Amino acid sequence: MSSKRIAGPEIERLIQLLAKVPGLGPRSARRAALHLIKKKEQLLIPLSAAMGEAVEKVKVCSTCGNIDTADPCTVCTDPRRDGSTIIVVEDVADLWALERSAALSARYHVLGGTLSPLDGIGPDDLTIDKLVARVAEGGVTEVVLAVNATVDGQTTAHYITDRLADFEARVTRLAHGVPVGGELDYLDEGTIAAALKSRTAF
Amino acid sequence: MSSKRIAGPEIERLIQLLAKVPGLGPRSARRAALHLIKKKEQLLIPLSAAMGEAVEKVKVCSTCGNIDTADPCTVCTDPRRDGSTIIVVEDVADLWALERSAALSARYHVLGGTLSPLDGIGPDDLTIDKLVARVAEGGVTEVVLAVNATVDGQTTAHYITDRLADFEARVTRLAHGVPVGGELDYLDEGTIAAALKSRTAF
Repeated sequence: MSSKRIAGPEIERLIQLLAKVPGLGPRSARRAALHLIKKKEQLLIPLSAAMGEAVEKVKVCSTCGNIDTADPCTVCTDPRRDGSTIIVVEDVADLWALERSAALSARYHVLGGTLSPLDGIGPDDLTIDKLVARVAEGGVTEVVLAVNATVDGQTTAHYITDRLADFEARVTRLAHGVPVGGELDYLDEGTIAAALKSRTAF
Repeated sequence: MSSKRIAGPEIERLIQLLAKVPGLGPRSARRAALHLIKKKEQLLIPLSAAMGEAVEKVKVCSTCGNIDTADPCTVCTDPRRDGSTIIVVEDVADLWALERSAALSARYHVLGGTLSPLDGIGPDDLTIDKLVARVAEGGVTEVVLAVNATVDGQTTAHYITDRLADFEARVTRLAHGVPVGGELDYLDEGTIAAALKSRTAF
């Protein structure tokens, strides 16, 4: 806003904080603040209450690193899930993405990032020790490394594979290939090469 | 999220409400919720508090219709503003946009929309009577109609001009023309015609 005050500091503070929410910028934060204030009963009050509840109740699962209002989390305590398979992900967002695919009903382990020597992120900054401990407890037959297909992600996958080498659990990773709905013309050579190499019977 | 529960209902409710904020959709609301929860101390707690304050303190100015934490609002009570000029806008967002231009230090009047017979919006649904009363009180020498250059906006401008015909206050409107930085090739004929008609000495 201009240097001349046109609204109380409370509204400007709301706009400033909304601008920090991913997906919103300074301009859309103003629009969002106005909309919230206009829809006070339908949106501002419920959203304010939901945030207050999140502040109070949301915690990180001490077993898998998922975010939930219960600890252990809903996923870790779900009896219908196959506890013998652990899917290792970098971030909670990846856990949610995998759940949306609904392809595998397993438990998870959130690493909290990837190994990155350049950024000074070593094994102790991630939950790798905790993962090894979970596998050491027994009952785990497969660890699926669902890390991103980036250099750091693959480095992390190799490191975890080494750490789990002495256990009986099978270590697997996501398949590389052509995305469903993808057009070959728009894909990079690495993906096409991987898809050719892992070709399957039709 | 999938039909299988992966987080407590509080988190899903937060995502659902965030998805209703303009600028966010279902996908970006998930991303925003995760970011808020991860940045609990820096973002979630302050934003939750700011929303709570907005719920409690924000009100509509009974004089001009601006949104503020004081009534009459900061603009209406600012002694440095020229009280003899009232800028009429459709919405609070337009008031903020005009303030950002910092071109005129006047007071405002927020209509709350435009006349729209098709949508059943008549003069009584807007704050036109209040505007006429403000002008009737005296001391107002100019009313600037800063409504949008749409059919409904112009209809509203004509109606207000008629209602203010008996007062001494001059009724003006925003100039039509080429936007600053605009290229003629991309402009519609109506704007170019208006800019030609209102050409000024160089």
